[in-house]
Amino acid sequence: MTAADQTTASAETSTGSKFDSVLDDALAALAGRTYFSRYPESPSPRVYGETAAAQGLSAYEGRLGKPFEGLQGAFDDTTVGDEVSPYGPTLGVAYPHLDVDAAMAAATDAIPAWRDAGPRRRALVLIEALDALNKQSFEIGNAVHHTSGQPFVMAFQAGGPQAQDRGLEAVAAAYAEQSRVPESVTWEKPGKGEPLRMQKDYRIVPRGVALVVGCNTFPTWNAYPGIFASLATGNAVVIKPHPRAILPLAITVETLQQTLSDNGFDPKLVQLAPEADGEGLAKTLAERDEVKIIDYTGGPTFGAWLEREGAARGQQVYTEKAGVNTVVVDSTDNVRAMLGNLAFSLSLYSGQMCTTPQNIYLPKDGIDTDEGHLSFEEFGAKLGGAIGKLTGEDEKAVEILGATVNDDVRARAGSLDKIASDAGGSVVADTRQVTHPKYPDAVVRTPGLIGVGVEAQGAYTTEQFGPVTFLIGTDGTDQSLSTFRDTVRKHGAMTASVYSTDEAVLDKARDAAMDAGVALSENLLGQVFVNQTAAFSDYHGTGANPAANAAYADSAFVAGRFRVITARRHV
Amino acid sequence: MTAADQTTASAETSTGSKFDSVLDDALAALAGRTYFSRYPESPSPRVYGETAAAQGLSAYEGRLGKPFEGLQGAFDDTTVGDEVSPYGPTLGVAYPHLDVDAAMAAATDAIPAWRDAGPRRRALVLIEALDALNKQSFEIGNAVHHTSGQPFVMAFQAGGPQAQDRGLEAVAAAYAEQSRVPESVTWEKPGKGEPLRMQKDYRIVPRGVALVVGCNTFPTWNAYPGIFASLATGNAVVIKPHPRAILPLAITVETLQQTLSDNGFDPKLVQLAPEADGEGLAKTLAERDEVKIIDYTGGPTFGAWLEREGAARGQQVYTEKAGVNTVVVDSTDNVRAMLGNLAFSLSLYSGQMCTTPQNIYLPKDGIDTDEGHLSFEEFGAKLGGAIGKLTGEDEKAVEILGATVNDDVRARAGSLDKIASDAGGSVVADTRQVTHPKYPDAVVRTPGLIGVGVEAQGAYTTEQFGPVTFLIGTDGTDQSLSTFRDTVRKHGAMTASVYSTDEAVLDKARDAAMDAGVALSENLLGQVFVNQTAAFSDYHGTGANPAANAAYADSAFVAGRFRVITARRHV
Repeated sequence: MTAADQTTASAETSTGSKFDSVLDDALAALAGRTYFSRYPESPSPRVYGETAAAQGLSAYEGRLGKPFEGLQGAFDDTTVGDEVSPYGPTLGVAYPHLDVDAAMAAATDAIPAWRDAGPRRRALVLIEALDALNKQSFEIGNAVHHTSGQPFVMAFQAGGPQAQDRGLEAVAAAYAEQSRVPESVTWEKPGKGEPLRMQKDYRIVPRGVALVVGCNTFPTWNAYPGIFASLATGNAVVIKPHPRAILPLAITVETLQQTLSDNGFDPKLVQLAPEADGEGLAKTLAERDEVKIIDYTGGPTFGAWLEREGAARGQQVYTEKAGVNTVVVDSTDNVRAMLGNLAFSLSLYSGQMCTTPQNIYLPKDGIDTDEGHLSFEEFGAKLGGAIGKLTGEDEKAVEILGATVNDDVRARAGSLDKIASDAGGSVVADTRQVTHPKYPDAVVRTPGLIGVGVEAQGAYTTEQFGPVTFLIGTDGTDQSLSTFRDTVRKHGAMTASVYSTDEAVLDKARDAAMDAGVALSENLLGQVFVNQTAAFSDYHGTGANPAANAAYADSAFVAGRFRVITARRHV
Repeated sequence: MTAADQTTASAETSTGSKFDSVLDDALAALAGRTYFSRYPESPSPRVYGETAAAQGLSAYEGRLGKPFEGLQGAFDDTTVGDEVSPYGPTLGVAYPHLDVDAAMAAATDAIPAWRDAGPRRRALVLIEALDALNKQSFEIGNAVHHTSGQPFVMAFQAGGPQAQDRGLEAVAAAYAEQSRVPESVTWEKPGKGEPLRMQKDYRIVPRGVALVVGCNTFPTWNAYPGIFASLATGNAVVIKPHPRAILPLAITVETLQQTLSDNGFDPKLVQLAPEADGEGLAKTLAERDEVKIIDYTGGPTFGAWLEREGAARGQQVYTEKAGVNTVVVDSTDNVRAMLGNLAFSLSLYSGQMCTTPQNIYLPKDGIDTDEGHLSFEEFGAKLGGAIGKLTGEDEKAVEILGATVNDDVRARAGSLDKIASDAGGSVVADTRQVTHPKYPDAVVRTPGLIGVGVEAQGAYTTEQFGPVTFLIGTDGTDQSLSTFRDTVRKHGAMTASVYSTDEAVLDKARDAAMDAGVALSENLLGQVFVNQTAAFSDYHGTGANPAANAAYADSAFVAGRFRVITARRHV
């Protein structure tokens, strides 16, 4: 490098916005992977204000039974929407339906000014939008509660502040990656006579229109990383929500559009594309030439189609599909805490998290614990007991279990005996139907446990979404770990955990997790659960196994969303 | 962030190797995109030593007419190889042929120790290998010369030091991305009582086996970025060279294996997979479960297959395929220098660079220059004259033109009249067959120019690889720019340039290049050519148009080659 080389990196310069320090703090946390949260997860009145809960509920109720008026977009003259809460009530919200041609044109037209605003300006506008969304956390929490079936506190937390923190994480990750490209540089190559001197300007350009396909169970949490990462890198976004979970994303789009407008940008940078059940709008949108990025959460069949056909069309496709999350139990010095932690992990939202454990491997000869040796059967009975204790009172149970989200889950929960006998195993702890004290139509289920041998791979290597868990008896922990590794390499997983008092076993478990390409939680006994990841510190997924090709939010999750165009000339 | 948060980033710590400072300098250059080169491009004896050229030639000649003995790998008992120099001589080197099953097993077995060595150790070992390759630049230069047909000095530069600089750039880019992930952090979440405290360890894991598919024209330059980026991120690499350009990569693999061995790593981390012509080994290898990354340079049909099927298999696929490189001529204040620069760009290696301009747009009414107005026909005649002057003497011409690489190129060069008449145009400057003074069997061609109207899109939107250039008459510069933009968006391009004395036109050209997703060179008049890019500063391609889905070496080129696996536990 010569002394004459000069780099201008004005993308990194503060702009005087009140959000500058937020971005800088988020960048520092992301670099250090330390604890960071901008949006408090507690729904306490002391945090969000005495009237926030009531106002949020009222705002939610004010949306029901009428057309959703707040959206901007290129619409045809039809409406769609027939959301019914898993708790029973019909939402009755009618959403305007996009005119796809016009919507794509509007999105494309909106891009240049947003692109030219540059990475830092975009990041600050998006943080302003996240702050605005945070103020709506109770309203969005109710909308997530009544579309996903999550219990309310979880819906508030995961659908509100935790989703917002994941959005901020995506903004920070996208900014970090873009800010590494200088805006302009004087390049000077020494030679025999005068050096060759060129000015090179580097422009960050977006890929085009980004499609985000939302899911039913986590309409905001799984969508925000893609939405915010694509917007932060200068793309326009079209969001196709799940037909049974439109409202949380409609409110999100309305707020994003308002913030974009307030800052002088075209609100149609973000458009909502709700569909009628069975319309197949995601496929129609994915096949558009304008669409260059897809973020998808959903079933593996359509996900694989998007990956294959998207690649053929030059699209960058990020998917989260399905997997078999795993717990390996070797031994413990605190069996009570272990069972309590596991019972909560299995019960939370009736096992309908993409991160809920499904397969628990333990030696068929049992495990050593602080309460003596436990046989395989005793372990199953005790875990069933811990679940029963946690979910014994209907009124409290529904605040953990939520409601089953769809008929598939209900059918699976209702046929535990058949699943067990098909697998050559037996029901160790039956699922219990809970009556919701407020919503009698809600179908609420406690987790059921099925005991099988390690040979029953046909059953436990398929995702059994919902309250179904396999206890799998192995020849010993070595076989537990090798089956874990092989199964996850082939069938994928979002999470894994291990319980052992033996450092050598934990080392082997770490090696197996590395080989399997899944994150590992070790000896969770307290208030951290394997289902849960923290923005800025834990990656959600790894991208290293078939469950997902991406992680929230590593550099691979953002680096493919923009390109760099150089213009060079002699000076 | 709390004060108790602690981050360990030992990946960034110096290790005391003599290559530490090389890596640090490369990282600084990459961050600043300033001029940087470790490997001198001049083949001068003052740089490489008085005896280097003769020793390199002798080493090259010592490879000919016998089995290539230096490779390690899992071989079957056959050999392949029937390379014939585009200059005439038969190379006669027989290469051992991989046993694919055993080679994949060997590659997989080699990964864990390489993975566990960590990003910095890998980077330093790879820099040692690049330094060793640099000492072989004359040997490799001769091998590239006699497989690609590049003129010798170009083969030395592009095949040797410039390829090595691109390799170093990939190592630096990969290290930069990996080093942003801390090794370990104490995460502390504040709560009502004691904070929740966890230790989180982050492990960089490779994707698996990386397949690199080489091309005929730039066997090392186009392969090194993928090879070094994949190795730097912990993967094993299997290299499938083009059947007519095996030797440069065989020497490369031999040296890489030696350096890996010297440092205590399994040499089978890099294996050469030469094939017989027509064997289809690239497809066989691409379909292996072990293969998780593919780097491909070659034709668009197989490239598109790799992208589609690779995505379906969860592979990360980086391709460089084909495009139509473009020059827009609006006006100039130095017509002589412009024509000289363009003539060289078209002549260098007979237009067989993926970066050679193919389409030159100018107003059919001509352009304003410092020598007065030039009509379309006068421009064509003058450009033909400049080419003729540059390539008029056979002996000097072959040092620019090299030799045609294959029968396709020869056929195209030999049918200029037909291409012109099919396009409804005419030959403006005919291609001239040059007799090589040393190699009478070499087919050497000067660039031919075909004049067409802008309506002849059927001809000029297809890549005419080799010495065929279209002069395309437009209604004016606005149409030139819009046709440029639309054509590149649809058909791709690796390079673009513009000549204009009008800042407003240059601004429009920058906008068009941004929309087209291609890098722009402006008013090149001297010793920088649109075909050439500089490592650490210019991106090779952008990934933003159909010519290539990747750029050497941006963050997207490296971020998909590794994943991060977390292990977390309470402390």
